[in-house]
Amino acid sequence: MSLSTVEPLLKNLRVLELGHYIAAPYATRTLADLGADVIKVEPPGTGDPVRSWGIQEENGSLWWSIHGRNKRSVTLNLRDPKAPELVLKLAAQCDVVIENYKPGQLEKWGLTPEAFAKARPGMVLVRISGYGQTGPESKRAGFGVIGEAQGGLRYLCAHPPEISDLPSVRTGVSIGDSITGLYGAIGALSAVIAQRESGAQDVRVIDVALGESVLTMLEGIMPEYERYGMVRQPVGSRIPTASPTNAYKSADDHWILIAANSDRLFATLAKLMGKPYLATDPRYISNVNRLENNEELDRMIGEWVASSSADDALTLLEEANIPSSKIYTAADIAADKHYQARKMVTMIDDPLHGKVMHPGVVPMIYGIERDSQIRWTGPSVGQHTDEVLSELLKMSPDDVAALRKEGTI
Amino acid sequence: MSLSTVEPLLKNLRVLELGHYIAAPYATRTLADLGADVIKVEPPGTGDPVRSWGIQEENGSLWWSIHGRNKRSVTLNLRDPKAPELVLKLAAQCDVVIENYKPGQLEKWGLTPEAFAKARPGMVLVRISGYGQTGPESKRAGFGVIGEAQGGLRYLCAHPPEISDLPSVRTGVSIGDSITGLYGAIGALSAVIAQRESGAQDVRVIDVALGESVLTMLEGIMPEYERYGMVRQPVGSRIPTASPTNAYKSADDHWILIAANSDRLFATLAKLMGKPYLATDPRYISNVNRLENNEELDRMIGEWVASSSADDALTLLEEANIPSSKIYTAADIAADKHYQARKMVTMIDDPLHGKVMHPGVVPMIYGIERDSQIRWTGPSVGQHTDEVLSELLKMSPDDVAALRKEGTI
Repeated sequence: MSLSTVEPLLKNLRVLELGHYIAAPYATRTLADLGADVIKVEPPGTGDPVRSWGIQEENGSLWWSIHGRNKRSVTLNLRDPKAPELVLKLAAQCDVVIENYKPGQLEKWGLTPEAFAKARPGMVLVRISGYGQTGPESKRAGFGVIGEAQGGLRYLCAHPPEISDLPSVRTGVSIGDSITGLYGAIGALSAVIAQRESGAQDVRVIDVALGESVLTMLEGIMPEYERYGMVRQPVGSRIPTASPTNAYKSADDHWILIAANSDRLFATLAKLMGKPYLATDPRYISNVNRLENNEELDRMIGEWVASSSADDALTLLEEANIPSSKIYTAADIAADKHYQARKMVTMIDDPLHGKVMHPGVVPMIYGIERDSQIRWTGPSVGQHTDEVLSELLKMSPDDVAALRKEGTI
Repeated sequence: MSLSTVEPLLKNLRVLELGHYIAAPYATRTLADLGADVIKVEPPGTGDPVRSWGIQEENGSLWWSIHGRNKRSVTLNLRDPKAPELVLKLAAQCDVVIENYKPGQLEKWGLTPEAFAKARPGMVLVRISGYGQTGPESKRAGFGVIGEAQGGLRYLCAHPPEISDLPSVRTGVSIGDSITGLYGAIGALSAVIAQRESGAQDVRVIDVALGESVLTMLEGIMPEYERYGMVRQPVGSRIPTASPTNAYKSADDHWILIAANSDRLFATLAKLMGKPYLATDPRYISNVNRLENNEELDRMIGEWVASSSADDALTLLEEANIPSSKIYTAADIAADKHYQARKMVTMIDDPLHGKVMHPGVVPMIYGIERDSQIRWTGPSVGQHTDEVLSELLKMSPDDVAALRKEGTI
């Protein structure tokens, strides 16, 4: 279909970020990617700690090029006595404030929900934290790996005890924080819709907790435990209800996933393996039977995969329409033709680093060129301070210079 | 703060779900939890396959009680020649359609974006799939574990090769599908805001791909590879840039996480361990030194944790404000006082199953009683067919009976 060019979806939404580290900045990156004007408040000097996480270059981390993209950076020392008034003046020009300080911290600075409502009637305030704003643990410091552990995800990221006694693993990225950020974005957008509809003049407070954001993804695990005392156990590389589904190692030492767990797919796989008779063998004829004899089946599939290169096995599997994939590394992602065709992996000009590989904006919006949605890369600390104070607070260059001299900005 | 009672945020949003399995229904669960009127179209008979996933009771799975909650179920055989007209009539009463059929399938039924736009000018159409609607792989079947593998997450869920040669693990839940669903919800809400602002009469199409939704969470992994050829490797249970951060096994065989990776936190931990001198030992005095001597440090912390019960160690760690947690199982979550206080884990009446343990609605909205947001549990197949066809399509009981007799609904 053809679609006329459309403008960024959130072009009329302005968001003030009082955030740092990952969760709140991930929420605002999501909104900024879809066109929102995100004003990120950072401490003068080194700014958000993520600027120094991961590989460092002269102008900071490459991660920051992505994490800070499409946002405007304004410096403000929130511990300065003049800061709260400036924050409220900025908030007065925004639809949403997203913050992830420790619960109670903003209140210590006088930045209460009521103060935001007074500054900007109808305001939406999204508060992201480890444990939420209420409850006995709310004052504890939040932390990604802790939230993932208490949300029940970490326990499941392991091989079962009969295979390995090693501890469960991190997912390797800060997935708990990112998921929490997505729930923050959903809360912000939903509350904006509600406030616009109702014309309410008070503040809508959205409370997003790390452990809770992870926990809500646990499928039927909680009711199955409550009713049957069944504690869901880690299953390693398999799917325990569908056989065969597992990772198998190729002759050239790549792991490939094969999910041939319907009777039809299994018959096709058996033929590829040169053992078509397996499909009618009573031990493997249906999923129930295959699950009972899963170990022997996985051994045979493993032998077949081990006898060829990953590329050769995958070519056969794809031609046969069997769901399968190499387990992608960063190198595989960068080389993937499909990601390139959809500009999901793309090189973007970054004034601080030169050309930087970025992930495309998710979700893809028809009618907007995907690359053009990355309007700019992560800015330097305070790059937009003068611009924003002039544009939104109508401050003169002299006023701004005075604040800078005093160390407020 | 006190807040007046507020109505559900999305009470004026109606969503038609042409979805099955996990990703699209997870998107609509998120919207339904926040108050949207979600009309889920299911095949007559057995309905959505998730109804039979996980532990089965007489009336289906406990997972369904959660996955289908707050939605209205309408049966419709989409392969019936009369179905497309009925779908478009339903869509005419909705703001958003969310679907996750294989790309091209809706078009085969005549359900093109243009047809939706004609039925409901200003419509938002969210299309969820494994590979997206465009690009060379778009016609391949999507599948959660494949998307997680191609998005780069699966490779990282492992111990490093020097520790184990076992394959990487699944996260144990369908996290790729759920994350994709969250991006679908964000796309839907953002596009609703845009369409309402602009008054556009055409359709806004949002294209959400499983692998892309995972890939966008990879922090700085892609630019670090592109520039330095550095392929991010799995790190097991540690955080490779901050020491000490790891899982340690207690005397009573529970894994606990300790993240004491600032100098101050490490000094506190060293004191708890009865080895206060470690904090000034040049091998452990700063994060850089601790990382260099991480193995020996982890061994000592492991010995300390192994010498007491998990409860005893955690009590000491919490009193000392060191970020720490047991790695929670379902049993730990159910027993957690903080989750209970926030009604994040709560028992809900389900007419099909009796009382069922549900996760609370995420995010928490101030001013709405958390339990009350779970308005009803996953309905039976077609429970709302008569109600919806009468209310939205003004069909008479006789018309509905005729459709039922013909097997259309």
